[in-house]
Amino acid sequence: MLLSDIAHMLEGKLVGNNQEIFDVSTIEEAGPSDITFLANPKYKDKALITRAGAILVGQELETDTPQVVVDDPYLAFSQILEMLHPPKQHAPGVSSSACVHPDAEIDPSACIYPLVYVGAGSKISGKCVLYPGCFIGEGVTLGEETFLYPNVVIYDGCSLGKGCILHAGVVIGSDGFGFVWDGHKHKKIPQTGVVILGDFVEIGSNCTIDRAVLTSTLIGSDVKMDNQVQIGHNVRVGDHTIIVAMTGIAGSAQIGNNVILAGQVGVAGHIKVGDGCTVAARAGITSDLAPGRIVSGYPEMDHKHWLRVQKAYKDLPDLLKRIRELERRLDAIDKD
Amino acid sequence: MLLSDIAHMLEGKLVGNNQEIFDVSTIEEAGPSDITFLANPKYKDKALITRAGAILVGQELETDTPQVVVDDPYLAFSQILEMLHPPKQHAPGVSSSACVHPDAEIDPSACIYPLVYVGAGSKISGKCVLYPGCFIGEGVTLGEETFLYPNVVIYDGCSLGKGCILHAGVVIGSDGFGFVWDGHKHKKIPQTGVVILGDFVEIGSNCTIDRAVLTSTLIGSDVKMDNQVQIGHNVRVGDHTIIVAMTGIAGSAQIGNNVILAGQVGVAGHIKVGDGCTVAARAGITSDLAPGRIVSGYPEMDHKHWLRVQKAYKDLPDLLKRIRELERRLDAIDKD
Amino acid sequence: MLLSDIAHMLEGKLVGNNQEIFDVSTIEEAGPSDITFLANPKYKDKALITRAGAILVGQELETDTPQVVVDDPYLAFSQILEMLHPPKQHAPGVSSSACVHPDAEIDPSACIYPLVYVGAGSKISGKCVLYPGCFIGEGVTLGEETFLYPNVVIYDGCSLGKGCILHAGVVIGSDGFGFVWDGHKHKKIPQTGVVILGDFVEIGSNCTIDRAVLTSTLIGSDVKMDNQVQIGHNVRVGDHTIIVAMTGIAGSAQIGNNVILAGQVGVAGHIKVGDGCTVAARAGITSDLAPGRIVSGYPEMDHKHWLRVQKAYKDLPDLLKRIRELERRLDAIDKD
Repeated sequence: MLLSDIAHMLEGKLVGNNQEIFDVSTIEEAGPSDITFLANPKYKDKALITRAGAILVGQELETDTPQVVVDDPYLAFSQILEMLHPPKQHAPGVSSSACVHPDAEIDPSACIYPLVYVGAGSKISGKCVLYPGCFIGEGVTLGEETFLYPNVVIYDGCSLGKGCILHAGVVIGSDGFGFVWDGHKHKKIPQTGVVILGDFVEIGSNCTIDRAVLTSTLIGSDVKMDNQVQIGHNVRVGDHTIIVAMTGIAGSAQIGNNVILAGQVGVAGHIKVGDGCTVAARAGITSDLAPGRIVSGYPEMDHKHWLRVQKAYKDLPDLLKRIRELERRLDAIDKD
Repeated sequence: MLLSDIAHMLEGKLVGNNQEIFDVSTIEEAGPSDITFLANPKYKDKALITRAGAILVGQELETDTPQVVVDDPYLAFSQILEMLHPPKQHAPGVSSSACVHPDAEIDPSACIYPLVYVGAGSKISGKCVLYPGCFIGEGVTLGEETFLYPNVVIYDGCSLGKGCILHAGVVIGSDGFGFVWDGHKHKKIPQTGVVILGDFVEIGSNCTIDRAVLTSTLIGSDVKMDNQVQIGHNVRVGDHTIIVAMTGIAGSAQIGNNVILAGQVGVAGHIKVGDGCTVAARAGITSDLAPGRIVSGYPEMDHKHWLRVQKAYKDLPDLLKRIRELERRLDAIDKD
Repeated sequence: MLLSDIAHMLEGKLVGNNQEIFDVSTIEEAGPSDITFLANPKYKDKALITRAGAILVGQELETDTPQVVVDDPYLAFSQILEMLHPPKQHAPGVSSSACVHPDAEIDPSACIYPLVYVGAGSKISGKCVLYPGCFIGEGVTLGEETFLYPNVVIYDGCSLGKGCILHAGVVIGSDGFGFVWDGHKHKKIPQTGVVILGDFVEIGSNCTIDRAVLTSTLIGSDVKMDNQVQIGHNVRVGDHTIIVAMTGIAGSAQIGNNVILAGQVGVAGHIKVGDGCTVAARAGITSDLAPGRIVSGYPEMDHKHWLRVQKAYKDLPDLLKRIRELERRLDAIDKD
């Protein structure tokens, strides 16, 4: 692609020579046929010495390297990457090595790979792709262009919106964790609900989302989950929320829209996290959070306060010494 | 079902009109054809305004809604749910799309779905159900009515009792994590033991339980594990123990009977947790626990003490200020 | 095997009667036909009363039990175990129930079990074993004698060295977690890189390793990962590094050679952990670590300092009391 075409497509401005670009690369590894990008100003020095053939920038740099100046270099980078790496095509049709129940409804434009199982009454919409090893139970619905990587398991009755991407090993709709002691043993509480996913949900590999006891575990649209996230029964997650790897959300918690839960977070059962909250990595949420809060720690506190707490925490042995010294000095005064 | 029949079955007392009930629902979502329940007195206000056709209670309420008064409303709720949602039936027999070794023994009443693999010398007992994608190695034994959801993997030589439920993606019997440095690289220590599960064990999706080095990793009867739990080699877990999601138990730890390990807990290697202990969410256990202890934190401490510690911890910046103030005041006195 | 043969093979010294040994067992469970070992001197008392037929020791014990004295009893134990439990043999060839693309290259000495899928352009080298349910995408390379347990998923373009062992449910090459807000929703950043594993890498069950955005996520040779580890995109892990269960490493972090990350650790994005560092269980690493450091806590600190901090932390309610007492005493003085 010519840089002028890239600039035109991105509604940006070309500064410097117009030349041809074949791929995208990192600022350190790019060569003369690659375009790279500067999204974070702290890497400006690297941008000035990159070997890249061109660079996407937010503001013009003083360099001879041709630049495409755009509003959001990171977004522009993503758009070029998409153009240069168009998604793989999958031939429509049902493999003869798949096991599809005769009462399942498969759109002719869907691609069902070998070794897939689809149960009775399930509906696979147009342009869906189901990789080998996927299991679709009974009465499951998949919206258009939903994509299941290998070994994804969808239990009976769950439904996914359109444009979802589920990575390998994801489990949707396993039983919620519910038991009641009957005097002799833990009696299982039947988990008769389902899981419902909105549109454009992406779920990382080996995540698990449990079905509700009675109603639905709900995941909003445009929710993005990293790998190994765990969602308990009856949880609700709002639209556009980001959940980073290894986070666990206990039963009946309600997570708002546009929330960010960073890595290895825990949210206790029945907790409400308001819209737009940011929960820092490894925090454990044990109380409801009003919208827009930024919290850290376990139990959680305002992130800024947590920074002060952590500083004092590290200095605890010194604090202890100062208290001992104060006691010594007071003892000396009292003796006088 | 008629309320009078429900009351009779639960050995409870019907208060109010005898009417027909078709399903169970939550206190907020129930309609006139549903029965709901009040297990936690703090939701009493909701019970008084529910639209439900009837309500299971522990003590009679002042309301016109028909009530069934029982000893344990939550247990009763579970029993009604079970009656109204009887478990799915699975046609016995081995699918022609399954791969079963001729030397495996499959009870005729078991149901082996397509795309299942069963190795030589394994024994699948009566009324077992193996969903698609399950792998049973060689010499594995499954007790009666044990249920494996899709993509469960049981390595060679492991055995499961009767009435177990393993959710999708569970791995039983993978190698324990054992290496010894041979001067140049990590030499693998062969993991020649197995995993043995008792009866009525339920294991959540994507849990992993490693086989022992020499003997057995043992999971007692009526143990219930939530999703994404990790159990190291040679661990022993006692009967009736509850392990909540994302908990990890390191090698050779011994967990007693009737223990509760809440979510995201860690137990260090070789630690003994006594019968009846409760470990709060996110705690990390690094010392043996006497029976019946209730602990929190990392390293763990008595839960009540931990609550006081956490309070002071949050106030650390204030403590620091108070120490500075004390120092200032003492300096002033010393100057006099 | 005769003890004299064992001693000869291990370059050790036999002390006591030369007798025949049939298996290896633990110091508590060994019987007269078993050999056991004493690696940790703190179990010396147990060694003196073991019922074992022989014992591997580093230094001669005062006991009648025959002993084989070796440099490293634990290594010797591992070697004997290996001799007595030779690895299972797998018949070479491709099962007729596997789905192998005609353009895939399978070495005739490899064993491809039923229900395996191998995509176009992939290369499976000699003596590889692929258990049922494994998925190999397109253009994947597996080095010689690499072993995939059931339901392992390798996405397109990834490559594994020789002698690797991947346990059940491992996912290699799922998309890294990368999105950019386009003003209305999270736009997916195409993850066009791959994952490259060195030689003799072992990965525990249900681990997940994401592919890079542009280049490669790199795992060095002789890296050993326990179960349920999560590795983000563009991470680099050096040779011989040990990663214990449930550890998560965020995107672009660089972990050196010979590092130990204990269980449930978190490493933040872009962090560099130097060669030979040891990170204690549950630590969270938020700053670069110079080589050889031993750290604990979150945020991390020197392990020895952390021990002091933890001690003071547990005593916080007492510290608070002492501060109150100091304030009271000073108030009394000021009143005078």
